[in-house]
Amino acid sequence: MNLRSGRLKGQMNKEVADFTSSLKFDHRIFQADIRCNQAHTTMLIEQEIIPSEIGNRIIKALEELEKEGIKALKLDSAVEDIHMAVENYVTAKIGPDAGFMHTAKSRNDQVATDLKLALKEEIKSIEKDLIFFIQIIIQMAEEYLDTIMVGYTHLQHAQPTTFAHHLLSYAQALKRDYGRLHDAYQRMDLCPLGSAALTTTSFPINRERTAELLGFKGPMENSIDGVSSRDFIAETVFALTLLGTTLSKISEELIVWSSYEFQMVELGDEFSSTSSIMPQKKNPDVAEIVRAKTALLNGELVTILTIIKSLPQSYNRDLQEVTPHLWKVTDTLHSALNITREMLASTNFKGVRGEELARANFSAATELADLMVKEGRLPFRIAHQIVGRAVSTALDKGMRAEDIDTQFLDEISQEISGKKLQIDENLVKKALDPEEIIKSRKVVGGPAPDMVKASIKDLKIFIDENSSS
Amino acid sequence: MNLRSGRLKGQMNKEVADFTSSLKFDHRIFQADIRCNQAHTTMLIEQEIIPSEIGNRIIKALEELEKEGIKALKLDSAVEDIHMAVENYVTAKIGPDAGFMHTAKSRNDQVATDLKLALKEEIKSIEKDLIFFIQIIIQMAEEYLDTIMVGYTHLQHAQPTTFAHHLLSYAQALKRDYGRLHDAYQRMDLCPLGSAALTTTSFPINRERTAELLGFKGPMENSIDGVSSRDFIAETVFALTLLGTTLSKISEELIVWSSYEFQMVELGDEFSSTSSIMPQKKNPDVAEIVRAKTALLNGELVTILTIIKSLPQSYNRDLQEVTPHLWKVTDTLHSALNITREMLASTNFKGVRGEELARANFSAATELADLMVKEGRLPFRIAHQIVGRAVSTALDKGMRAEDIDTQFLDEISQEISGKKLQIDENLVKKALDPEEIIKSRKVVGGPAPDMVKASIKDLKIFIDENSSS
Amino acid sequence: MNLRSGRLKGQMNKEVADFTSSLKFDHRIFQADIRCNQAHTTMLIEQEIIPSEIGNRIIKALEELEKEGIKALKLDSAVEDIHMAVENYVTAKIGPDAGFMHTAKSRNDQVATDLKLALKEEIKSIEKDLIFFIQIIIQMAEEYLDTIMVGYTHLQHAQPTTFAHHLLSYAQALKRDYGRLHDAYQRMDLCPLGSAALTTTSFPINRERTAELLGFKGPMENSIDGVSSRDFIAETVFALTLLGTTLSKISEELIVWSSYEFQMVELGDEFSSTSSIMPQKKNPDVAEIVRAKTALLNGELVTILTIIKSLPQSYNRDLQEVTPHLWKVTDTLHSALNITREMLASTNFKGVRGEELARANFSAATELADLMVKEGRLPFRIAHQIVGRAVSTALDKGMRAEDIDTQFLDEISQEISGKKLQIDENLVKKALDPEEIIKSRKVVGGPAPDMVKASIKDLKIFIDENSSS
Amino acid sequence: MNLRSGRLKGQMNKEVADFTSSLKFDHRIFQADIRCNQAHTTMLIEQEIIPSEIGNRIIKALEELEKEGIKALKLDSAVEDIHMAVENYVTAKIGPDAGFMHTAKSRNDQVATDLKLALKEEIKSIEKDLIFFIQIIIQMAEEYLDTIMVGYTHLQHAQPTTFAHHLLSYAQALKRDYGRLHDAYQRMDLCPLGSAALTTTSFPINRERTAELLGFKGPMENSIDGVSSRDFIAETVFALTLLGTTLSKISEELIVWSSYEFQMVELGDEFSSTSSIMPQKKNPDVAEIVRAKTALLNGELVTILTIIKSLPQSYNRDLQEVTPHLWKVTDTLHSALNITREMLASTNFKGVRGEELARANFSAATELADLMVKEGRLPFRIAHQIVGRAVSTALDKGMRAEDIDTQFLDEISQEISGKKLQIDENLVKKALDPEEIIKSRKVVGGPAPDMVKASIKDLKIFIDENSSS
Repeated sequence: MNLRSGRLKGQMNKEVADFTSSLKFDHRIFQADIRCNQAHTTMLIEQEIIPSEIGNRIIKALEELEKEGIKALKLDSAVEDIHMAVENYVTAKIGPDAGFMHTAKSRNDQVATDLKLALKEEIKSIEKDLIFFIQIIIQMAEEYLDTIMVGYTHLQHAQPTTFAHHLLSYAQALKRDYGRLHDAYQRMDLCPLGSAALTTTSFPINRERTAELLGFKGPMENSIDGVSSRDFIAETVFALTLLGTTLSKISEELIVWSSYEFQMVELGDEFSSTSSIMPQKKNPDVAEIVRAKTALLNGELVTILTIIKSLPQSYNRDLQEVTPHLWKVTDTLHSALNITREMLASTNFKGVRGEELARANFSAATELADLMVKEGRLPFRIAHQIVGRAVSTALDKGMRAEDIDTQFLDEISQEISGKKLQIDENLVKKALDPEEIIKSRKVVGGPAPDMVKASIKDLKIFIDENSSS
Repeated sequence: MNLRSGRLKGQMNKEVADFTSSLKFDHRIFQADIRCNQAHTTMLIEQEIIPSEIGNRIIKALEELEKEGIKALKLDSAVEDIHMAVENYVTAKIGPDAGFMHTAKSRNDQVATDLKLALKEEIKSIEKDLIFFIQIIIQMAEEYLDTIMVGYTHLQHAQPTTFAHHLLSYAQALKRDYGRLHDAYQRMDLCPLGSAALTTTSFPINRERTAELLGFKGPMENSIDGVSSRDFIAETVFALTLLGTTLSKISEELIVWSSYEFQMVELGDEFSSTSSIMPQKKNPDVAEIVRAKTALLNGELVTILTIIKSLPQSYNRDLQEVTPHLWKVTDTLHSALNITREMLASTNFKGVRGEELARANFSAATELADLMVKEGRLPFRIAHQIVGRAVSTALDKGMRAEDIDTQFLDEISQEISGKKLQIDENLVKKALDPEEIIKSRKVVGGPAPDMVKASIKDLKIFIDENSSS
Repeated sequence: MNLRSGRLKGQMNKEVADFTSSLKFDHRIFQADIRCNQAHTTMLIEQEIIPSEIGNRIIKALEELEKEGIKALKLDSAVEDIHMAVENYVTAKIGPDAGFMHTAKSRNDQVATDLKLALKEEIKSIEKDLIFFIQIIIQMAEEYLDTIMVGYTHLQHAQPTTFAHHLLSYAQALKRDYGRLHDAYQRMDLCPLGSAALTTTSFPINRERTAELLGFKGPMENSIDGVSSRDFIAETVFALTLLGTTLSKISEELIVWSSYEFQMVELGDEFSSTSSIMPQKKNPDVAEIVRAKTALLNGELVTILTIIKSLPQSYNRDLQEVTPHLWKVTDTLHSALNITREMLASTNFKGVRGEELARANFSAATELADLMVKEGRLPFRIAHQIVGRAVSTALDKGMRAEDIDTQFLDEISQEISGKKLQIDENLVKKALDPEEIIKSRKVVGGPAPDMVKASIKDLKIFIDENSSS
Repeated sequence: MNLRSGRLKGQMNKEVADFTSSLKFDHRIFQADIRCNQAHTTMLIEQEIIPSEIGNRIIKALEELEKEGIKALKLDSAVEDIHMAVENYVTAKIGPDAGFMHTAKSRNDQVATDLKLALKEEIKSIEKDLIFFIQIIIQMAEEYLDTIMVGYTHLQHAQPTTFAHHLLSYAQALKRDYGRLHDAYQRMDLCPLGSAALTTTSFPINRERTAELLGFKGPMENSIDGVSSRDFIAETVFALTLLGTTLSKISEELIVWSSYEFQMVELGDEFSSTSSIMPQKKNPDVAEIVRAKTALLNGELVTILTIIKSLPQSYNRDLQEVTPHLWKVTDTLHSALNITREMLASTNFKGVRGEELARANFSAATELADLMVKEGRLPFRIAHQIVGRAVSTALDKGMRAEDIDTQFLDEISQEISGKKLQIDENLVKKALDPEEIIKSRKVVGGPAPDMVKASIKDLKIFIDENSSS
């Protein structure tokens, strides 16, 4: 059956039909479309809008279609979309009574409902893998609890920390990514079905009932909004874009850290490639591709926002073109998520190199300044100035951090503040030892192993609370 | 005091200093920076990290600064940023002991905290105005409860509805915009202070206490994450971008509807301009500017996402450049929100024209098809085909919707289904009457005045629940 | 043959291999890759770098591959990419001597060369269709030379013009779109081949020769730049994005103009759809989809810019991910271009309605003010004020434009300037007649039919100059 | 004088007037607006459209305004824009005859002309600084002609090159950036003036003449296009965005290379900052800010593309909002350009470290494989495999590149190909020496000092050809 026959004379030619057809992506909502038709038909029977005998035959035909799968449909661009293809299937099975299925329903509300049904499943699946990723990070953090590394700001050595502490910064970012995705899920969990074309219908349908049958919290509250709004797609895509940014950041660090110069991590060979011309290369290709593929999310978000920004209210065909970008995003992100997780899990952090770097380049300087505040009762600013001069002098003289002692500091202090520091030599040595520094950072969110354990405990509670979803 | 003196030799020249300085936007966090320093100093005293006598002098100096206002600060690009300017002020007041204020704190955690404090205030203010907008829409909807208009899909006449029903579709979009903003607020409501540079500190600080003093739910759970993450900015900007899209949609409709051809609305003169060359013009300039200015949000979002996408973990100076875009977004959106509200409130919807259009062009066709299903027991698809042919024939013959009668329909039906419809003439006439159609749509979310009233009631509950926030 | 065997131990698992493989899009460069290998091998023989006997066998095998087509290749993600697949094919044909083909060449320079070769073909093909589009517009302009319409600013009636004049504004935009695309073509027309991995090679290759064999103007001037730069892709995509914006603008106008309210154009049925629920609808779906699909270009541009923005110099695997977005853009734009052309060509502009609107709503007001300047020697500003008041008064009194006469104007003039205008009644009537107004606009670029003909003549010269390309 | 008085009754309130006003950015077109008015008035006199006496008084008043500067204008948002402010100034000087100035001209064509005039100046200024940047790079390249470094792909050691060779890759990118900007300039160099509101005018104006007076190549060819098109802005912004990407890439490399781990460059202290808490830090803040600020260009491009994408043809007020983004882009880019140039010029590349890295990690492997092809007549693929295995074995055994000798290679070769290589030991040693490798790359675009000199020569020709512009 072809909808056009009533109103329009000419047929679209093949090129135009292909250009406008949504069929290429409609397989994503095949299951959802059947569920949606079943729920709607069930409600039509219950409300005595259509004869139950006919309704039951429709439902049965839909069940058969579900069993046979999408291959049972005749899908070519002349059919316009999957809604018509499903209706055609039912018509072939039970004859023109199939037409009752479309009573009090439009493709406008149906496609919005289908999209939400399919997207809710995708989100749940990504959420599950996101929780799994956090679990892997926790396992790694437990393993690297005492593994010293230098923390960077501006890609310069800042202060000593542990790889476990660093890993947990990923976990916190992923936890917020989860929260955003979950909020998007909650907000979209209202059912558009029954909005019909845009003003509902004069049939006495029961929208609460179809919402319930399809597992929504309830019906959407305005029918024009019901067929027009795609903010639920934009919001999901945005949440995934920020998740992609987190994955990109992890990949960026693995790329930099696996360079010859850093040598802080060794990626698994199965996450590396070599070169067609340079036989010595071991390249972090997978991390680079994660970094690049997650850029795609930014672009897809722009496409979606650009489409919806320019439209007046209610259904416009432009909305159809939002959907392929949604699936592109969920597919890309889902792969990137799982591959980043496996890549990180395969990564060997080189503890010896981590400690070497932490000791090499004055990353203990803050602690030294703090010590002057604590023991020397100096204002932090003066202490900061003394240590800054000390580092600068040490670099000029080719001294290393471990060469710094009380006498050297006293000389600088004398110069700047006019008096010596008179701090115990042992305390200075302790202040310069990365391991001691880490242990001393016993503040909430800090790198001391006990604090990291406490953070892990909190994360495990979060995981438990979100694992059944 | 200049931080550089310890470690670096050369000074930045003016051009470079201007290029890197954040001072141009730092006034946005002036209040927050004082509050942050006060809370931190209070905690340092309580924890006996600094002498209470010195701490109290610092707090007093900060109070004085708050009273004097930002003009009391010496702000030029040589000072680097407001944190240093505030410290310089306190130093000028109480001498080098001011240096104790910076104990166990870095600009990294401080600026993150300041930004959150200032942004939380902005969000609350926008939320308030958003609630007010929804209230205005409700008032208008109550006024236009029975005002007929034609609803559009594809910018073509679709089905009759009321202006009230259409207005509520805006309200629902705005309600979700509110929800997103509120979720962003909730998610950011954890305090970075005490993260220090990136690994906390060995001073025994109390992060729960500063979080409490500053009105946060609690401290952020990982200190590297504390100084590195700006997803709270991206999320807020995204929420405002979608809100901007809602405002743009409203403006788009006012532009189209105030054209000579549509003549559905009359904008207030105070929201219109004329032309420098065409004296007859009354242009919807304000709506056009809302449409254009909200495009800026899309671009700012891209800037922010591009900056944060390319960075490794922890603080990088790039993060400073995120902030101006945030304020640009909040300022632009806030103006656009209030102006769109006032513009919409000033708009006169022309009911006579609305009804004229609703009657003019077969927008009752769906109802006619539905009638054939209800009374003629036809499958909807057959009914759809008959009505499609009827409209097509009517257009060919130059007939208007009101010229359609039973006989005409029976002829078409005979042609297509081989039999007459035999529907009561009165029912046909009723099905063709926009007012009757609207009344008959008594479904949740539909345009029947009672349903619109029910929606309004729900919205009022939502407003009550969110008015104290 | 698998490159990894030398350096790396583990194999990528299927999921990772799929994630990193470029094979899905490599068919786009199949022809180019063969040409590139042939040119390179020819040069290697000429330079006596490889034995001519072996070289000739390689070239022969490549010729066979070209005849057999891409299906002759074994393409699965374990092969990494098409370069390896081609080499494997040649190896299967002639044995390990195939390995000589890769002498003094890397995948880095080869893929850059392949991309340019394939893209140059795409651009030439789009340029041809763009010229064809302009030709169609010229034909339409010749047909609609005297067809009056009202020109809009702010979507409000501005001044009378002709549909031909309006059409030529599209032609000028498309002409600049052509220019941008052509500049991108010219700029990319330098050959990267011979850059090898990034520093050329110690083999005495002849880069001018391979550039010549492949139809480039010459070789790229720096080998690191040769393998790293993808600005030629970004530039092409940008040029197509602006072309997409032109197509979107045309579509936007067709959507608005085919609304019931405007009724200025009738789209061909083959470019319209109806509704599944509203049988009376004739929707401009194709125009809406053009509008939405061209939004995709904006997003793809962002993706590409985001990827290349974050990279250090030289080849990074991220660059591979730029390519699919390029092909997505060329495919989408090319379809949209041809479909918009056909849709516009199928459009019937309703001259009667055009003239009706041009007469309806004071669009002659500027001419009236100009008349006062010419005949009444009034400064334009005073004239503007008088006409503005006249329109405002006329609207208040329900007068139409044609009701305005000398007496009415004199009254207003008296009020404002204290004296009568004393302009001949005939001149006033003429100034209010759209046809006369159009005829009078005999300025370069104006709507007078003679000026439109002159513009058409210039466009035809442009077409002639660019038709052989 | 207020335009509104004729047609509209209410005044805009202050908030709305501020929201819609362009005055904040109109100072950018102050000079251009005067020039535009002068040229237009001159032409009006020449064409005898206005009395020459009045015209000359107008021109004189404009000259006075130019001398007094923008401060002579009364600019508040009630004035709408600078065009009205200038007219008001002239009116104040010479009375209502000033109104003749606006004959046959609209703000629509005037603002388009002003923007082009001002933008052309900006572009010329940026082009000049871009040429200067390339000159600086050439100077540096001449200085670092023999300075060895390792070239990277995937941020992994690839092959030896020189810093000069690397620098020239920047120069080539900047040269294309120049070309794009220059093409944009050429394409925009047609004058919109005389398009009037959108359909020119019935006054016998001479558009060629005003175009000539204002220094344009000629008039724009369609008047609707003349007032509607802002693609010249989008194109300029895009060209600057890619230039920004080049600057970002340079900054990215300086950030990575100045890390403790790479230690390849030392930035000038005047382009570095220290930390408020970590006194040892020397951070590449300026490079980070360049990286971040150039991200802004991507976002501004999106804003502009989003605004123009959604509009129908002809002037819409949205276009006004494009302009501030243009100036934001030119200002930001111009600063970033000059600062990046100075920062790069201040950078000390550490030749000793460069050579150390080039020798450290098998970056000579390609040359070794090439040697086997040349001397051993092995197909490249077999050679690639042997060297790959050699590196892998060497890494396992803890051998360094310099430890590789003929015997070691023969063993591997035996294993893989079943025979020894029998290559002269001296050739192997030479193949492993970075200096020799670089010398041997005597291919166009390669790193051999003679080739770099040849590239510099070509660049100098380019500079000479473009220095007068």
